[in-house]
Amino acid sequence: MDAPSVKNPGRFITLEGGEGAGKSTQIQVVKDFLLTRGNDVVVTREPGGTSEGQEIRNLLVSGDKDKWSPLSETLLILADRAAHLERVIRPALAEGKYVVCDRFFDSTRAYQGVAGGLGLDVIHNLQQPVLGTTLPDVTLLLDIDPEKGLRRAQERGGELRFESKTLAYHRTLRNAFLDFAAQEPDRIFVIDADRDVEVVSADILAVLDERLDV
Amino acid sequence: MDAPSVKNPGRFITLEGGEGAGKSTQIQVVKDFLLTRGNDVVVTREPGGTSEGQEIRNLLVSGDKDKWSPLSETLLILADRAAHLERVIRPALAEGKYVVCDRFFDSTRAYQGVAGGLGLDVIHNLQQPVLGTTLPDVTLLLDIDPEKGLRRAQERGGELRFESKTLAYHRTLRNAFLDFAAQEPDRIFVIDADRDVEVVSADILAVLDERLDV
Repeated sequence: MDAPSVKNPGRFITLEGGEGAGKSTQIQVVKDFLLTRGNDVVVTREPGGTSEGQEIRNLLVSGDKDKWSPLSETLLILADRAAHLERVIRPALAEGKYVVCDRFFDSTRAYQGVAGGLGLDVIHNLQQPVLGTTLPDVTLLLDIDPEKGLRRAQERGGELRFESKTLAYHRTLRNAFLDFAAQEPDRIFVIDADRDVEVVSADILAVLDERLDV
Repeated sequence: MDAPSVKNPGRFITLEGGEGAGKSTQIQVVKDFLLTRGNDVVVTREPGGTSEGQEIRNLLVSGDKDKWSPLSETLLILADRAAHLERVIRPALAEGKYVVCDRFFDSTRAYQGVAGGLGLDVIHNLQQPVLGTTLPDVTLLLDIDPEKGLRRAQERGGELRFESKTLAYHRTLRNAFLDFAAQEPDRIFVIDADRDVEVVSADILAVLDERLDV
Protein backbone atom coordinates (compact mmCIF):
# COMPACT_ATOMS: atom_id res chain seq x y z
CA MET A 1 0.00 0.00 0.00
CA ASP A 2 1.22 3.57 0.59
CA ALA A 3 3.37 2.71 3.59
CA PRO A 4 6.24 5.11 4.25
CA SER A 5 9.68 3.88 3.29
CA VAL A 6 11.31 5.34 6.42
CA LYS A 7 10.48 4.94 10.09
CA ASN A 8 7.52 7.11 11.09
CA PRO A 9 8.66 10.32 12.71
CA GLY A 10 5.60 10.21 14.98
CA ARG A 11 4.80 7.59 17.58
CA PHE A 12 1.88 5.21 17.65
CA ILE A 13 0.48 4.11 21.02
CA THR A 14 -2.42 1.68 21.34
CA LEU A 15 -4.46 0.68 24.38
CA GLU A 16 -5.95 -2.77 24.52
CA GLY A 17 -7.85 -4.94 26.99
CA GLY A 18 -11.23 -6.40 27.76
CA GLU A 19 -14.43 -4.60 28.70
CA GLY A 20 -14.35 -2.41 31.80
CA ALA A 21 -10.56 -2.23 32.06
CA GLY A 22 -10.65 1.57 32.15
CA LYS A 23 -9.14 2.33 28.74
CA SER A 24 -11.15 5.51 28.20
CA THR A 25 -10.02 7.02 31.49
CA GLN A 26 -6.37 6.13 30.94
CA ILE A 27 -6.35 7.45 27.40
CA GLN A 28 -7.15 10.90 28.77
CA VAL A 29 -4.28 10.55 31.22
CA VAL A 30 -1.92 9.54 28.40
CA LYS A 31 -3.09 12.47 26.30
CA ASP A 32 -2.58 15.00 29.07
CA PHE A 33 0.85 13.59 29.83
CA LEU A 34 1.98 13.84 26.21
CA LEU A 35 0.58 17.36 25.85
CA THR A 36 2.34 18.46 29.03
CA ARG A 37 5.59 17.31 27.45
CA GLY A 38 4.91 19.55 24.45
CA ASN A 39 3.83 16.94 21.90
CA ASP A 40 1.08 17.10 19.31
CA VAL A 41 -1.39 14.37 20.17
CA VAL A 42 -4.20 12.74 18.21
CA VAL A 43 -6.54 10.61 20.33
CA THR A 44 -8.65 8.21 18.33
CA ARG A 45 -10.33 4.83 18.54
CA GLU A 46 -11.40 1.75 16.63
CA PRO A 47 -13.84 1.02 15.27
CA GLY A 48 -15.09 4.47 14.34
CA GLY A 49 -12.02 6.73 14.11
CA THR A 50 -13.32 8.47 10.96
CA SER A 51 -16.77 9.81 10.15
CA GLU A 52 -17.35 7.05 7.60
CA GLY A 53 -15.88 4.54 10.04
CA GLN A 54 -18.43 5.67 12.61
CA GLU A 55 -21.08 4.31 10.21
CA ILE A 56 -19.27 0.96 10.26
CA ARG A 57 -19.06 1.08 14.06
CA ASN A 58 -22.82 1.60 14.18
CA LEU A 59 -23.29 -1.60 12.14
CA LEU A 60 -20.96 -3.51 14.46
CA VAL A 61 -22.43 -2.51 17.80
CA SER A 62 -26.12 -2.66 16.93
CA GLY A 63 -28.31 -5.72 16.58
CA ASP A 64 -28.14 -9.26 17.90
CA LYS A 65 -24.79 -10.60 19.15
CA ASP A 66 -24.73 -13.16 16.33
CA LYS A 67 -25.68 -10.63 13.66
CA TRP A 68 -22.23 -10.87 12.08
CA SER A 69 -20.14 -13.99 11.69
CA PRO A 70 -16.53 -13.60 12.90
CA LEU A 71 -15.40 -13.36 9.26
CA SER A 72 -17.87 -10.61 8.30
CA GLU A 73 -17.11 -8.82 11.52
CA THR A 74 -13.36 -8.94 10.82
CA LEU A 75 -13.85 -7.55 7.32
CA LEU A 76 -16.03 -4.69 8.60
CA ILE A 77 -13.42 -3.88 11.23
CA LEU A 78 -10.69 -3.94 8.59
CA ALA A 79 -12.70 -1.64 6.30
CA ASP A 80 -12.86 0.79 9.19
CA ARG A 81 -9.15 0.30 9.93
CA ALA A 82 -8.14 0.91 6.32
CA ALA A 83 -9.96 4.27 6.30
CA HIS A 84 -8.58 5.13 9.72
CA LEU A 85 -5.00 4.39 8.71
CA GLU A 86 -5.26 6.23 5.39
CA ARG A 87 -7.04 9.31 6.64
CA VAL A 88 -6.08 9.75 10.30
CA ILE A 89 -3.23 7.60 11.62
CA ARG A 90 -0.65 7.71 8.80
CA PRO A 91 -1.08 11.44 8.07
CA ALA A 92 -0.69 12.26 11.78
CA LEU A 93 2.39 10.06 12.17
CA ALA A 94 3.89 11.61 9.05
CA GLU A 95 3.52 15.03 10.72
CA GLY A 96 5.41 13.79 13.77
CA LYS A 97 2.38 13.56 16.02
CA TYR A 98 1.66 11.08 18.77
CA VAL A 99 -1.32 8.92 17.88
CA VAL A 100 -3.09 7.31 20.83
CA CYS A 101 -5.64 4.73 19.73
CA ASP A 102 -8.28 2.94 21.81
CA ARG A 103 -8.07 -0.60 20.38
CA PHE A 104 -6.20 -1.58 17.21
CA PHE A 105 -5.09 -4.80 15.55
CA ASP A 106 -4.48 -6.79 18.73
CA SER A 107 -8.21 -6.54 19.44
CA THR A 108 -8.99 -8.08 16.06
CA ARG A 109 -6.54 -10.88 16.79
CA ALA A 110 -8.06 -11.50 20.24
CA TYR A 111 -11.79 -10.99 19.55
CA GLN A 112 -12.21 -12.40 16.05
CA GLY A 113 -9.04 -14.49 15.70
CA VAL A 114 -9.00 -16.29 19.05
CA ALA A 115 -12.34 -15.81 20.85
CA GLY A 116 -14.29 -15.79 17.55
CA GLY A 117 -12.46 -18.90 16.36
CA LEU A 118 -11.31 -17.54 13.01
CA GLY A 119 -7.66 -18.31 13.75
CA LEU A 120 -4.68 -15.98 13.84
CA ASP A 121 -3.43 -17.02 10.40
CA VAL A 122 -6.65 -15.92 8.68
CA ILE A 123 -6.57 -12.66 10.61
CA HIS A 124 -2.93 -12.10 9.68
CA ASN A 125 -3.55 -12.72 5.98
CA LEU A 126 -6.54 -10.38 5.89
CA GLN A 127 -4.84 -7.68 7.99
CA GLN A 128 -1.50 -7.58 6.22
CA PRO A 129 -2.64 -5.58 3.15
CA VAL A 130 -4.40 -3.13 5.48
CA LEU A 131 -1.62 -2.57 8.01
CA GLY A 132 1.36 -2.50 5.66
CA THR A 133 4.22 -1.33 7.89
CA THR A 134 2.11 0.79 10.25
CA LEU A 135 2.34 -1.00 13.60
CA PRO A 136 2.14 0.35 17.15
CA ASP A 137 5.37 1.46 18.81
CA VAL A 138 3.90 0.76 22.25
CA THR A 139 0.79 -1.18 23.24
CA LEU A 140 -0.58 -0.83 26.76
CA LEU A 141 -2.60 -3.89 27.74
CA LEU A 142 -4.96 -3.01 30.60
CA ASP A 143 -5.50 -6.38 32.20
CA ILE A 144 -8.38 -7.16 34.53
CA ASP A 145 -10.28 -10.24 35.65
CA PRO A 146 -13.29 -10.46 33.29
CA GLU A 147 -15.82 -10.79 36.11
CA LYS A 148 -14.66 -7.51 37.60
CA GLY A 149 -14.34 -5.83 34.22
CA LEU A 150 -17.82 -6.82 33.09
CA ARG A 151 -19.30 -5.59 36.37
CA ARG A 152 -17.62 -2.23 35.78
CA ALA A 153 -18.84 -2.12 32.15
CA GLN A 154 -22.40 -2.92 33.19
CA GLU A 155 -22.39 -0.16 35.80
CA ARG A 156 -21.17 2.23 33.10
CA GLY A 157 -23.80 1.18 30.50
CA GLY A 158 -23.20 1.71 26.79
CA GLU A 159 -22.64 -0.58 23.80
CA LEU A 160 -23.46 -4.10 24.85
CA ARG A 161 -22.98 -6.45 21.93
CA PHE A 162 -19.65 -7.84 23.12
CA GLU A 163 -20.42 -7.36 26.77
CA SER A 164 -23.39 -9.72 26.44
CA LYS A 165 -21.18 -12.67 25.51
CA THR A 166 -20.48 -15.33 28.14
CA LEU A 167 -17.88 -15.06 30.85
CA ALA A 168 -15.99 -17.96 29.23
CA TYR A 169 -15.70 -15.87 26.05
CA HIS A 170 -14.21 -12.98 28.02
CA ARG A 171 -11.77 -15.30 29.79
CA THR A 172 -10.61 -16.56 26.39
CA LEU A 173 -10.12 -12.96 25.31
CA ARG A 174 -8.06 -12.10 28.36
CA ASN A 175 -5.80 -15.11 27.86
CA ALA A 176 -5.36 -14.20 24.19
CA PHE A 177 -4.18 -10.70 25.05
CA LEU A 178 -1.81 -12.07 27.69
CA ASP A 179 -0.42 -14.54 25.16
CA PHE A 180 0.24 -11.72 22.69
CA ALA A 181 2.06 -9.80 25.42
CA ALA A 182 4.20 -12.84 26.23
CA GLN A 183 5.10 -13.14 22.54
CA GLU A 184 5.97 -9.46 22.09
CA PRO A 185 7.32 -8.19 25.42
CA ASP A 186 9.14 -5.29 23.73
CA ARG A 187 5.90 -3.85 22.33
CA ILE A 188 3.07 -4.95 24.63
CA PHE A 189 3.16 -3.91 28.28
CA VAL A 190 0.75 -5.57 30.69
CA ILE A 191 -0.74 -3.12 33.18
CA ASP A 192 -2.69 -4.50 36.14
CA ALA A 193 -5.92 -2.52 35.80
CA ASP A 194 -7.52 -3.85 38.97
CA ARG A 195 -6.10 -1.06 41.12
CA ASP A 196 -6.89 2.58 41.88
CA VAL A 197 -6.97 4.73 38.75
CA GLU A 198 -4.00 6.83 39.90
CA VAL A 199 -1.83 3.78 40.48
CA VAL A 200 -2.68 2.39 37.05
CA SER A 201 -1.91 5.79 35.48
CA ALA A 202 1.46 5.98 37.19
CA ASP A 203 2.45 2.59 35.74
CA ILE A 204 1.36 3.63 32.26
CA LEU A 205 3.26 6.89 32.33
CA ALA A 206 6.36 5.12 33.59
CA VAL A 207 6.21 2.83 30.53
CA LEU A 208 5.80 5.75 28.15
CA ASP A 209 8.57 7.71 29.85
CA GLU A 210 10.96 4.85 29.45
CA ARG A 211 9.96 3.60 26.01
CA LEU A 212 9.27 6.76 24.07
CA ASP A 213 11.65 9.47 25.30
CA VAL A 214 8.71 11.85 25.50
CA MET B 1 -13.58 -22.12 5.92
CA ASP B 2 -16.66 -24.36 5.91
CA ALA B 3 -16.44 -25.20 2.21
CA PRO B 4 -18.02 -28.49 1.18
CA SER B 5 -15.62 -31.30 0.42
CA VAL B 6 -17.62 -32.45 -2.62
CA LYS B 7 -18.87 -30.57 -5.66
CA ASN B 8 -21.98 -28.53 -4.88
CA PRO B 9 -25.12 -30.35 -5.93
CA GLY B 10 -26.68 -26.97 -6.83
CA ARG B 11 -25.51 -24.61 -9.52
CA PHE B 12 -24.21 -21.11 -9.10
CA ILE B 13 -24.84 -18.57 -11.88
CA THR B 14 -23.58 -14.99 -11.72
CA LEU B 15 -24.37 -12.03 -13.95
CA GLU B 16 -21.74 -9.34 -14.41
CA GLY B 17 -21.23 -6.20 -16.47
CA GLY B 18 -21.13 -2.43 -16.30
CA GLU B 19 -23.96 -0.03 -15.51
CA GLY B 20 -27.01 -0.13 -17.76
CA ALA B 21 -26.24 -3.52 -19.33
CA GLY B 22 -29.67 -4.85 -18.42
CA LYS B 23 -28.70 -7.34 -15.72
CA SER B 24 -31.89 -6.90 -13.69
CA THR B 25 -34.12 -7.63 -16.66
CA GLN B 26 -32.14 -10.67 -17.74
CA ILE B 27 -32.02 -12.11 -14.23
CA GLN B 28 -35.79 -12.37 -14.27
CA VAL B 29 -35.59 -14.14 -17.62
CA VAL B 30 -33.03 -16.59 -16.23
CA LYS B 31 -35.17 -17.20 -13.16
CA ASP B 32 -38.31 -17.90 -15.20
CA PHE B 33 -36.39 -20.23 -17.50
CA LEU B 34 -34.98 -22.26 -14.61
CA LEU B 35 -38.37 -22.43 -12.88
CA THR B 36 -40.03 -23.60 -16.08
CA ARG B 37 -37.53 -26.46 -16.16
CA GLY B 38 -38.61 -27.46 -12.65
CA ASN B 39 -35.65 -26.20 -10.65
CA ASP B 40 -35.61 -24.46 -7.27
CA VAL B 41 -34.16 -21.00 -7.83
CA VAL B 42 -32.77 -18.38 -5.46
CA VAL B 43 -32.29 -14.96 -7.03
CA THR B 44 -30.00 -12.69 -5.08
CA ARG B 45 -27.53 -9.87 -5.49
CA GLU B 46 -24.38 -8.24 -4.18
CA PRO B 47 -23.89 -6.15 -2.29
CA GLY B 48 -26.97 -6.56 -0.08
CA GLY B 49 -28.05 -10.21 -0.44
CA THR B 50 -28.81 -10.53 3.30
CA SER B 51 -30.64 -8.18 5.64
CA GLU B 52 -27.42 -7.29 7.42
CA GLY B 53 -25.66 -7.00 4.05
CA GLN B 54 -28.31 -4.51 2.99
CA GLU B 55 -26.95 -2.26 5.75
CA ILE B 56 -23.49 -2.58 4.19
CA ARG B 57 -24.93 -1.83 0.74
CA ASN B 58 -26.45 1.34 2.15
CA LEU B 59 -23.00 2.44 3.32
CA LEU B 60 -21.51 1.70 -0.10
CA VAL B 61 -24.04 3.48 -2.30
CA SER B 62 -24.58 6.61 -0.19
CA GLY B 63 -22.32 9.62 0.12
CA ASP B 64 -19.60 11.13 -2.01
CA LYS B 65 -17.96 9.01 -4.70
CA ASP B 66 -14.62 9.19 -2.85
CA LYS B 67 -16.17 8.39 0.52
CA TRP B 68 -14.44 4.99 0.61
CA SER B 69 -10.95 4.21 -0.61
CA PRO B 70 -10.75 1.16 -2.90
CA LEU B 71 -9.33 -0.85 0.00
CA SER B 72 -12.10 0.05 2.46
CA GLU B 73 -14.66 -0.49 -0.24
CA THR B 74 -13.28 -3.95 -1.01
CA LEU B 75 -13.37 -4.93 2.66
CA LEU B 76 -16.97 -3.75 3.03
CA ILE B 77 -17.95 -5.71 -0.06
CA LEU B 78 -16.18 -8.79 1.28
CA ALA B 79 -17.93 -8.45 4.66
CA ASP B 80 -21.20 -8.49 2.75
CA ARG B 81 -20.02 -11.42 0.61
CA ALA B 82 -18.97 -13.47 3.62
CA ALA B 83 -22.44 -13.12 5.16
CA HIS B 84 -24.09 -13.80 1.81
CA LEU B 85 -22.08 -16.96 1.22
CA GLU B 86 -22.58 -18.28 4.74
CA ARG B 87 -26.27 -17.54 5.07
CA VAL B 88 -27.73 -17.63 1.55
CA ILE B 89 -25.53 -19.01 -1.22
CA ARG B 90 -23.89 -22.07 0.39
CA PRO B 91 -27.06 -23.29 2.14
CA ALA B 92 -29.05 -22.99 -1.12
CA LEU B 93 -26.38 -24.80 -3.16
CA ALA B 94 -26.21 -27.53 -0.52
CA GLU B 95 -29.97 -28.07 -1.00
CA GLY B 96 -29.47 -28.49 -4.75
CA LYS B 97 -30.92 -25.11 -5.71
CA TYR B 98 -29.90 -22.83 -8.53
CA VAL B 99 -28.47 -19.60 -7.18
CA VAL B 100 -28.58 -16.65 -9.60
CA CYS B 101 -26.59 -13.68 -8.32
CA ASP B 102 -26.47 -10.13 -9.67
CA ARG B 103 -22.73 -9.34 -9.37
CA PHE B 104 -20.21 -11.44 -7.48
CA PHE B 105 -16.45 -11.66 -7.23
CA ASP B 106 -15.65 -10.63 -10.80
CA SER B 107 -17.15 -7.22 -9.99
CA THR B 108 -14.76 -6.81 -7.07
CA ARG B 109 -11.87 -7.74 -9.34
CA ALA B 110 -12.99 -5.27 -12.03
CA TYR B 111 -14.21 -2.34 -9.91
CA GLN B 112 -11.79 -2.32 -6.99
CA GLY B 113 -8.93 -4.43 -8.37
CA VAL B 114 -8.54 -2.94 -11.84
CA ALA B 115 -10.54 0.31 -12.09
CA GLY B 116 -9.89 1.20 -8.43
CA GLY B 117 -6.18 0.43 -8.84
CA LEU B 118 -5.86 -1.97 -5.90
CA GLY B 119 -4.45 -4.73 -8.09
CA LEU B 120 -5.74 -8.24 -8.70
CA ASP B 121 -3.21 -9.83 -6.34
CA VAL B 122 -4.45 -7.84 -3.35
CA ILE B 123 -8.04 -8.66 -4.27
CA HIS B 124 -7.20 -12.34 -4.62
CA ASN B 125 -5.47 -12.49 -1.24
CA LEU B 126 -8.33 -10.74 0.53
CA GLN B 127 -11.04 -12.74 -1.27
CA GLN B 128 -9.57 -16.21 -0.88
CA PRO B 129 -10.54 -16.74 2.78
CA VAL B 130 -14.05 -15.49 1.97
CA LEU B 131 -14.71 -17.52 -1.19
CA GLY B 132 -13.11 -20.79 -0.17
CA THR B 133 -14.18 -23.21 -2.92
CA THR B 134 -17.51 -21.54 -3.69
CA LEU B 135 -17.09 -20.21 -7.22
CA PRO B 136 -19.64 -19.63 -9.99
CA ASP B 137 -20.36 -22.48 -12.39
CA VAL B 138 -21.37 -20.03 -15.10
CA THR B 139 -20.86 -16.28 -15.33
CA LEU B 140 -22.83 -14.28 -17.88
CA LEU B 141 -21.02 -11.08 -18.82
CA LEU B 142 -23.48 -8.58 -20.26
CA ASP B 143 -21.22 -6.42 -22.36
CA ILE B 144 -22.15 -2.97 -23.61
CA ASP B 145 -20.35 0.18 -24.71
CA PRO B 146 -20.10 2.33 -21.53
CA GLU B 147 -21.52 5.43 -23.22
CA LYS B 148 -24.68 3.55 -24.13
CA GLY B 149 -24.84 1.75 -20.79
CA LEU B 150 -24.49 4.94 -18.77
CA ARG B 151 -27.20 6.63 -20.85
CA ARG B 152 -29.53 3.72 -20.08
CA ALA B 153 -28.62 3.83 -16.38
CA GLN B 154 -29.24 7.56 -16.20
CA GLU B 155 -32.64 7.17 -17.84
CA ARG B 156 -33.47 4.53 -15.26
CA GLY B 157 -32.28 6.59 -12.27
CA GLY B 158 -31.23 4.94 -9.02
CA GLU B 159 -27.98 4.52 -7.10
CA LEU B 160 -25.45 6.86 -8.62
CA ARG B 161 -22.14 6.56 -6.79
CA PHE B 162 -20.44 4.43 -9.45
CA GLU B 163 -22.42 5.86 -12.31
CA SER B 164 -20.99 9.31 -11.54
CA LYS B 165 -17.43 8.20 -12.25
CA THR B 166 -15.84 9.25 -15.54
CA LEU B 167 -16.36 7.53 -18.85
CA ALA B 168 -12.68 6.53 -18.84
CA TYR B 169 -13.31 4.68 -15.58
CA HIS B 170 -16.19 2.76 -17.13
CA ARG B 171 -14.10 1.91 -20.19
CA THR B 172 -11.42 0.49 -17.89
CA LEU B 173 -14.11 -1.58 -16.20
CA ARG B 174 -15.41 -2.95 -19.45
CA ASN B 175 -11.94 -3.96 -20.59
CA ALA B 176 -11.29 -5.63 -17.25
CA PHE B 177 -14.40 -7.79 -17.56
CA LEU B 178 -13.50 -8.71 -21.14
CA ASP B 179 -9.99 -9.66 -20.01
CA PHE B 180 -11.42 -11.94 -17.35
CA ALA B 181 -13.64 -13.60 -19.96
CA ALA B 182 -10.65 -14.13 -22.24
CA GLN B 183 -8.79 -15.76 -19.35
CA GLU B 184 -11.67 -18.04 -18.32
CA PRO B 185 -13.64 -18.88 -21.44
CA ASP B 186 -15.09 -22.02 -19.87
CA ARG B 187 -16.75 -20.05 -17.07
CA ILE B 188 -17.39 -16.53 -18.36
CA PHE B 189 -19.63 -16.05 -21.41
CA VAL B 190 -19.68 -12.66 -23.10
CA ILE B 191 -23.17 -11.62 -24.16
CA ASP B 192 -23.55 -8.61 -26.45
CA ALA B 193 -26.08 -6.57 -24.46
CA ASP B 194 -26.48 -3.83 -27.05
CA ARG B 195 -29.37 -5.57 -28.77
CA ASP B 196 -33.09 -6.07 -28.22
CA VAL B 197 -33.90 -7.61 -24.86
CA GLU B 198 -35.37 -10.76 -26.44
CA VAL B 199 -32.27 -11.38 -28.53
CA VAL B 200 -30.01 -10.99 -25.50
CA SER B 201 -32.26 -13.35 -23.52
CA ALA B 202 -32.13 -15.99 -26.24
CA ASP B 203 -28.32 -15.96 -26.17
CA ILE B 204 -28.27 -16.28 -22.39
CA LEU B 205 -30.68 -19.19 -22.34
CA ALA B 206 -28.70 -20.95 -25.05
CA VAL B 207 -25.59 -20.74 -22.85
CA LEU B 208 -27.46 -22.08 -19.82
CA ASP B 209 -29.05 -24.85 -21.85
CA GLU B 210 -25.70 -26.00 -23.10
CA ARG B 211 -23.59 -25.52 -19.97
CA LEU B 212 -25.90 -26.60 -17.19
CA ASP B 213 -28.10 -29.41 -18.48
CA VAL B 214 -31.08 -27.66 -16.95
